[in-house]
Amino acid sequence: MIERTGQRTLKFGKKPVLLSHAAAVGKKEGDGPLGAQFDYVTEDDRMGEKSWELAESRLQKTAIEMALKKGALQKNDLDFILAGDLLNQCIGSFLASVDSNVPYLGQYGACSTMAQGLALGACLVEGGAARRLVASASSHFCSAERQYRFPLAYGGQRTPTAQWTATAAGAAVLGCKGSGSLRVTHALFGKMVELGVKDANNMGAAMAPAAYDTLKTLLDDLDAAPRDFDCIVTGDLGHVGADILLTLFRQDGIDLSPVYSDCGSLLFGDEQDAHAGGSGCGCSAAVLCGPLLRDMQSGKIKRLVFAGTGAMMSPTSVQQGQPIAGICHAVVIERSEA
Amino acid sequence: MIERTGQRTLKFGKKPVLLSHAAAVGKKEGDGPLGAQFDYVTEDDRMGEKSWELAESRLQKTAIEMALKKGALQKNDLDFILAGDLLNQCIGSFLASVDSNVPYLGQYGACSTMAQGLALGACLVEGGAARRLVASASSHFCSAERQYRFPLAYGGQRTPTAQWTATAAGAAVLGCKGSGSLRVTHALFGKMVELGVKDANNMGAAMAPAAYDTLKTLLDDLDAAPRDFDCIVTGDLGHVGADILLTLFRQDGIDLSPVYSDCGSLLFGDEQDAHAGGSGCGCSAAVLCGPLLRDMQSGKIKRLVFAGTGAMMSPTSVQQGQPIAGICHAVVIERSEA
Repeated sequence: MIERTGQRTLKFGKKPVLLSHAAAVGKKEGDGPLGAQFDYVTEDDRMGEKSWELAESRLQKTAIEMALKKGALQKNDLDFILAGDLLNQCIGSFLASVDSNVPYLGQYGACSTMAQGLALGACLVEGGAARRLVASASSHFCSAERQYRFPLAYGGQRTPTAQWTATAAGAAVLGCKGSGSLRVTHALFGKMVELGVKDANNMGAAMAPAAYDTLKTLLDDLDAAPRDFDCIVTGDLGHVGADILLTLFRQDGIDLSPVYSDCGSLLFGDEQDAHAGGSGCGCSAAVLCGPLLRDMQSGKIKRLVFAGTGAMMSPTSVQQGQPIAGICHAVVIERSEA
Repeated sequence: MIERTGQRTLKFGKKPVLLSHAAAVGKKEGDGPLGAQFDYVTEDDRMGEKSWELAESRLQKTAIEMALKKGALQKNDLDFILAGDLLNQCIGSFLASVDSNVPYLGQYGACSTMAQGLALGACLVEGGAARRLVASASSHFCSAERQYRFPLAYGGQRTPTAQWTATAAGAAVLGCKGSGSLRVTHALFGKMVELGVKDANNMGAAMAPAAYDTLKTLLDDLDAAPRDFDCIVTGDLGHVGADILLTLFRQDGIDLSPVYSDCGSLLFGDEQDAHAGGSGCGCSAAVLCGPLLRDMQSGKIKRLVFAGTGAMMSPTSVQQGQPIAGICHAVVIERSEA
């Protein structure tokens, strides 16, 4: 049964088990500082497909299939697939799972989609709706550039606050039973927070206030300090948004920095020309399902807050002068000693 | 607690209560045969807004606010908003709830979004994750035409199998407690079914096999015949898809027709030039939250299967030659005598 703790935090009594996970990334992401910790790095970002959109779906499919394989599971062991991406009508996810023969629930939380799927998945497993399910998300630099910005061949210049959409996908399998040592203990679904940011090249600024709202509420609800966790990670505020988040906490007299990281800041090295860092649904999905959960399995991280952040907007809404709202969903994952 | 019955049907022991509901529609929908049974009919489809996208979000916001008002509820009584629409990055729903200050979970199930949100909402309420939540969905003829087909001013001709995207929105509030007589008893999340249909002007044919898969599984799981329900309604196969669904059941020796309707077929009259009938997330949302739930409250319908159908595709996926997959999520709603 799910209990509510404090204002808005959900506490899972049975603690859904993270049965397995996998991350698949593009060449640039594989060349980055986390490269060795992904399960799959493609040599060719087209993945042998005819379009970037199909390449993205192939990447997400790869992550799901590898997660299942690592957990010695088949597709028919799954009760649901919770998946999403940034493409119009979420076609990256639909095409990745169209032949899965598994009930499918499309999720849209912009770049917070992985956290949304994981939090929702934990609720479904805990409540008895599913015995096992997968949460997955993806993004692809080339499909995102075409849709949100300019055709690649145009060679557009990027502003320093702009983030680089990651070519990446992650998938995590949750179950009600299993011998895994990683368990989801809490979740918090975020509100949209909108403070007037209208610059689509500065998503970090648009998302940071939502991350602050969610993380502050979570810490308050759990009566916890940042140091009660080994790692609090947002995904993906990038360098600009991460700085704003730290500043917002500092105003409350709270120093998040000793345990804080951001998936967008971690993904690319300084020399990789990714400006403010990585972004896209696949960025936080792959950093979680690759390095972070590996570090939990090895015992380096014992208590993790994964706070997925998203920017609610579209090229149409931005062109029409509408503000960009941030959203942030958080999941607490703990490692129990066997 | 949620139990699994048969293959895939979820059974709700505590049966989440449908606390209130409202439907808001455009002028053409108000002129149709169901016009008098919607809570709000606009005289101006622009809703006083500067763009069709903002008009759609205003329509969804209207439906949510009216549902809350009818239930004597405030926004801060809600733990979650589960919402979705057809616009790129689901901006109709994000803009409708950006100032709500309520945790927000974006859903994408194409035209099945209302059923997906309602089924998921029932799981969240039953499992203890939410005390009260709203599920909502919208579509707008003008924002959809611009995005999916042609600019309105082009005056494009429509094929006879094409459906007419409804200007409509619906919202339903679910709660764990309450004096309401309408309760969600079962839900079934659907698989994507794809049989090679690539014609974006014949969505009914693309969606009917998924509706068949979901409804056949539901009837089998509940060991029920169509006559065990007062109404089995799909939303929205339109005339073409509804005929295919009846034919598929007839091949199993099952006659669905005595209790079967389709929201897309019900919404517009024959003289309204809507070709194969209505479609869009708002069509089934408004027909459910307007006439169908009113008929349940009055006792005309006591046991309803609401089976939302969606076509997974985008203009990009269709242009790239990808097939259109159907999906169908079902919810069973019962009226208990006071």
